[in-house]
Amino acid sequence: VSGGEFDQLRAIFARLGSAAAGLGDDCALIPVGGTTMALSIDASLEGVHFRTDWLSFEEIGWRAAGAALSDLAAAGAVPIGVLVSLGVPDAGGAAQEIMAGVGACAVHVGGKVLGGDLARSERYFVDVAVVGTAAHPVRRRGAAAGDGVWVTGALGGPARALEALRAGATPEAGMRRRWARPEPRLAAGAWLAAHGARAMIDLSDGLAADAAHLAQASGVAVEIALERVPCWPGVDPLAAAASGEEYELLVALPAGFSEAAAAELERAGGAPLTRIGRCADGTGVRLTLGGRPVPAPPGWDHFAP
Amino acid sequence: VSGGEFDQLRAIFARLGSAAAGLGDDCALIPVGGTTMALSIDASLEGVHFRTDWLSFEEIGWRAAGAALSDLAAAGAVPIGVLVSLGVPDAGGAAQEIMAGVGACAVHVGGKVLGGDLARSERYFVDVAVVGTAAHPVRRRGAAAGDGVWVTGALGGPARALEALRAGATPEAGMRRRWARPEPRLAAGAWLAAHGARAMIDLSDGLAADAAHLAQASGVAVEIALERVPCWPGVDPLAAAASGEEYELLVALPAGFSEAAAAELERAGGAPLTRIGRCADGTGVRLTLGGRPVPAPPGWDHFAP
Repeated sequence: VSGGEFDQLRAIFARLGSAAAGLGDDCALIPVGGTTMALSIDASLEGVHFRTDWLSFEEIGWRAAGAALSDLAAAGAVPIGVLVSLGVPDAGGAAQEIMAGVGACAVHVGGKVLGGDLARSERYFVDVAVVGTAAHPVRRRGAAAGDGVWVTGALGGPARALEALRAGATPEAGMRRRWARPEPRLAAGAWLAAHGARAMIDLSDGLAADAAHLAQASGVAVEIALERVPCWPGVDPLAAAASGEEYELLVALPAGFSEAAAAELERAGGAPLTRIGRCADGTGVRLTLGGRPVPAPPGWDHFAP
Repeated sequence: VSGGEFDQLRAIFARLGSAAAGLGDDCALIPVGGTTMALSIDASLEGVHFRTDWLSFEEIGWRAAGAALSDLAAAGAVPIGVLVSLGVPDAGGAAQEIMAGVGACAVHVGGKVLGGDLARSERYFVDVAVVGTAAHPVRRRGAAAGDGVWVTGALGGPARALEALRAGATPEAGMRRRWARPEPRLAAGAWLAAHGARAMIDLSDGLAADAAHLAQASGVAVEIALERVPCWPGVDPLAAAASGEEYELLVALPAGFSEAAAAELERAGGAPLTRIGRCADGTGVRLTLGGRPVPAPPGWDHFAP
């Protein structure tokens, strides 16, 4: 769930009352047979979330699955697999290519395609429901004042790739790949969940916007020192903080979580992990650059028309 | 999954190879933490599965959820809940009404809304992923020669309601309700699973077409005596056998399953259960009327343009 849809969805769920359960997080977390199931759904639509002239059908499938699987990562869950509904305008090979991309991404993180549906639609869509188990489920809430705030990976690549595409230019290959085939941080999410993560969220709306979501859910302020934010080469920290569709993880860890522990995550094959700030009493996100306050950038709105 | 999409989906999944798991049934059945999860996804699209001039938005939501939940019923599963992606053309109240219908149907069968996504789409769509647990999971395969073939409820109402709508007439209220607010047979499905069901399928494509699916999956012939098929008032058996979107259950039960046991299901609050035929050596569906063979009607294609 991204951008301006978030508030409308919350209103819809609020009206459901007791018909709704476990909402307001990246995943629903449901106790089942001695474990916790993590479940989420994420729709990708042509013209809203992707354009067919910028991505291959295989990439469209991979990205849709990656975005959905990233919600499992944020819950600290291990994926079982995905269920996929495809809408395609005709009976050509696009459906197979999209599904191949979905399957490749699911397998890449240890999951499978568990089911699907197919319908004729004027515009392409890929709706992906993800299913996993979480031995140590993590939510957006749970961060406390004093916790350290950390981020995986390096930010800003997707925004830069998109900027190039919008300008009619060709993005540099590595950057394009980073945008077109995002790698959801399942292994890192599960590792962090098992090593004390108090609250976690994936960066689909961008660092600044998603830090605000985590702050609100946890009832804390999140302070981020922009100069500490790991940036894609050539991207400045404020642009990195505004870049969406990153699918990196923002995590609150106890103050005692060390650089040595972070290095252990990286060695364990997970991801680079960088301390970029801390939680404090208060509300909202406080960005600073060299100690000076910086206004938060707007949230990510994909490239909705 | 309905009508002509079935074969294309099967081809797509076949190409996924080891990236796919548990496909080819109404639900994926996945062992998790000492129980079996049942999972399925079902997309409903404006112009393919529904028209906004024939149904209220609340009914559109209910029907989409009912269709998806019916897959859980066919697996003998108890629902946990649904995840729902909605596509709506504008920010009006339709999304709330659709979701209210989804929620009402989920609650009606003991489930909840576990998560959702929302996107702007030229045409409405409702994609519903369902999640449940199956203590005695039932598949389409598993029927054996000699098993009795039974069906829940009475068939033909939805086709008759649709016929009236197509002709510009107003369907009788009870029949319209049967079509607009189908009640997936969750309680009956779970009861049948616990009482020896060998194979089961829900009637989304219609009795004749879905009996063929069960026959194929089980490697048997399914013989149905049309004069035994319980029909909606005023519907003849062949029309009842062709009527889709019934969301009743077709089930193969051991030969010893008795009328007394069927009466017990009805008393237990489940559904009327009628013996309409048996499984035999061979393949395909054999319809008879008064002992004479009758050609099978075509499968159900919703009202696709």
